[in-house]
Amino acid sequence: MIYFDNASTTKISEQSLASYIEASELFFNPSSLYKQSVTVKSKIESARASILKFLKGIAGSTLIFTGSATEANNAVLNSSITRKDKKYIISAGEHSSIYTTAKKYLEAGYNIEFAPLTKNGSVNINRLKNMIDKDTAFISIIHVSNETGAVNDIKEICRYAKNINPNIIIHSDGVQALGKINVDLKSLGVDYYTISAHKIHGPKGIGALYIANKNKFKPFIFGGEQEMGLRAGTENTSNILAMKTAIDNLSIIDYHERKQTIIDNLSGDYILVSDDTCVDNIISICFKGVRGETIEHMLETNGYLIGTGSACNSKAGYNRVLSSIVPKEYLSGAIRISFDDEVTKDDCKNLAILISNAVKQYNKRIN
Amino acid sequence: MIYFDNASTTKISEQSLASYIEASELFFNPSSLYKQSVTVKSKIESARASILKFLKGIAGSTLIFTGSATEANNAVLNSSITRKDKKYIISAGEHSSIYTTAKKYLEAGYNIEFAPLTKNGSVNINRLKNMIDKDTAFISIIHVSNETGAVNDIKEICRYAKNINPNIIIHSDGVQALGKINVDLKSLGVDYYTISAHKIHGPKGIGALYIANKNKFKPFIFGGEQEMGLRAGTENTSNILAMKTAIDNLSIIDYHERKQTIIDNLSGDYILVSDDTCVDNIISICFKGVRGETIEHMLETNGYLIGTGSACNSKAGYNRVLSSIVPKEYLSGAIRISFDDEVTKDDCKNLAILISNAVKQYNKRIN
Repeated sequence: MIYFDNASTTKISEQSLASYIEASELFFNPSSLYKQSVTVKSKIESARASILKFLKGIAGSTLIFTGSATEANNAVLNSSITRKDKKYIISAGEHSSIYTTAKKYLEAGYNIEFAPLTKNGSVNINRLKNMIDKDTAFISIIHVSNETGAVNDIKEICRYAKNINPNIIIHSDGVQALGKINVDLKSLGVDYYTISAHKIHGPKGIGALYIANKNKFKPFIFGGEQEMGLRAGTENTSNILAMKTAIDNLSIIDYHERKQTIIDNLSGDYILVSDDTCVDNIISICFKGVRGETIEHMLETNGYLIGTGSACNSKAGYNRVLSSIVPKEYLSGAIRISFDDEVTKDDCKNLAILISNAVKQYNKRIN
Repeated sequence: MIYFDNASTTKISEQSLASYIEASELFFNPSSLYKQSVTVKSKIESARASILKFLKGIAGSTLIFTGSATEANNAVLNSSITRKDKKYIISAGEHSSIYTTAKKYLEAGYNIEFAPLTKNGSVNINRLKNMIDKDTAFISIIHVSNETGAVNDIKEICRYAKNINPNIIIHSDGVQALGKINVDLKSLGVDYYTISAHKIHGPKGIGALYIANKNKFKPFIFGGEQEMGLRAGTENTSNILAMKTAIDNLSIIDYHERKQTIIDNLSGDYILVSDDTCVDNIISICFKGVRGETIEHMLETNGYLIGTGSACNSKAGYNRVLSSIVPKEYLSGAIRISFDDEVTKDDCKNLAILISNAVKQYNKRIN
């Protein structure tokens, strides 16, 4: 089995799993008073500080651990979308945990505006800038698109928006950016930033939300005073320490040659959505006249696993993000290839040949 | 180290951890299309069905996995507290994840009423019944008190309330009931029921919410269509399968003799809050004239770990639940002893003697 669906989820690394297992001895409730609990609590705080340092959080910032990046994204909107006389802007390319949540607020009568995308799936920054005004209270723009790998210029968005009104709250979903591009939150200038462990060979069931100013954050989940009173629920020590290990082991890998190998060996009538400015580990390709699922299944019989678009969109029946940037006749032929360092250049070449053959075979069969 | 704080959290069992580790190979995203994902998805659905069967859920009911019992409790209130012209009743003995959340709704102008408790921490059922009327839309009563082990008659509450208005939604937080008393949701008649894994030697970071009628449930976390569209976020397969294992291994253990051993060996001026009708694995005791933390620390030096009340209340500075049922002069001397099958009768005897000595020593010192 050769796995080309790492943007969907990754396998927990041996090191991260080892941290999880080791931490199972640290089962004591961090809120209890005895020294074992104090030790657990201090390990959690070390992990928090270490991750904050890795992300280059600003002085006074913090980070809360959540049950998923989806929860972190929901929490940000819940905290930020509070007034009906303000404008809230998200991009059309947001992950469903932002997009669907924002739609809920739209239905509830809030003024939500959706910034359009360019051809590679990044937000159209000029159109976005034109939308930002004195009434704008909040902007959420994904750092790296989970569908196409397009990189948004969060730093420029923050600079521009804060210049119009320094009180505009800016969030970026960094789930697909972490470990793929340099993440420097101080330099970006965001108020909130979301990360996930299971996309970087950490455990599932844990995300984290960077919070530049905790006084502005309104909790989403209430109960005990865990996570500085910002997120209730007994701390998942094992997952927190396993997430820290996954982040400790991150290194930015150059996937350019492998991406190029795939592109060089593709044939058929297709649109390469992921251009040169996208991250190299995600390739979104849309074929004409063949369904993505058909390609996926044909590859599967050869032991190659690819995606047909974000799993979080898989049941919607169409790909929301691609539908706004790809001509209709190419839309149902969308596939997403995403890799980690396990895949070789040969795997990439074979994959591209298999895809090209699958498309050819399919076209022969139906013509 | 002898651990008497199992109501706070438990250590994951070898079997549950083994399930977690085994499932780390099943890392594929359950929403993907290839057969590995279909396999993962079917294992999750088997776990769901198995837990539902264990809980004796009614026909047509379902269960969603959450990031914690706290999240499940927040989700229930979020789904149920929707109109300002209705009455919502919770007990004064609810876990902080219900109580604090309900307080937030109260502050937002919703009509939340708090049913008082009896001396052992159970809800005063006659007072509760008097509060239920035609305007009542929702009732949440904890099944077994996390503070005192008092058992609430959820079946009778459901019968009475549904007789007044069959549309009243009834939730019970069963976190401390699961594995301690027989849980038969069909017999109880609840609409929602919350359980947690880390209180029954399962992993942290997972709870579940039983939902009798999913058409009545409004999701709390939005995004992908996971969990039948009722709770977004990539499924935590390892935790789900580890939780199933923890539930598979549950057996109701008779702790009566051990509880009695503790009581028989206690001395000093104290109130035994947990009476004979409470579960036997939790004992809440309030000493006069000595702080619970002092007793806790003195025991800790002897290797015995106990609680001073729910960790979820530990930072509030006082024990909310006990403060409504215990005279003021006994309140700061609250300790909570909670055990699993690892503790022996001898451990219990030693514990009680150590507690009694600690209290005696403290009183001698200050007098």
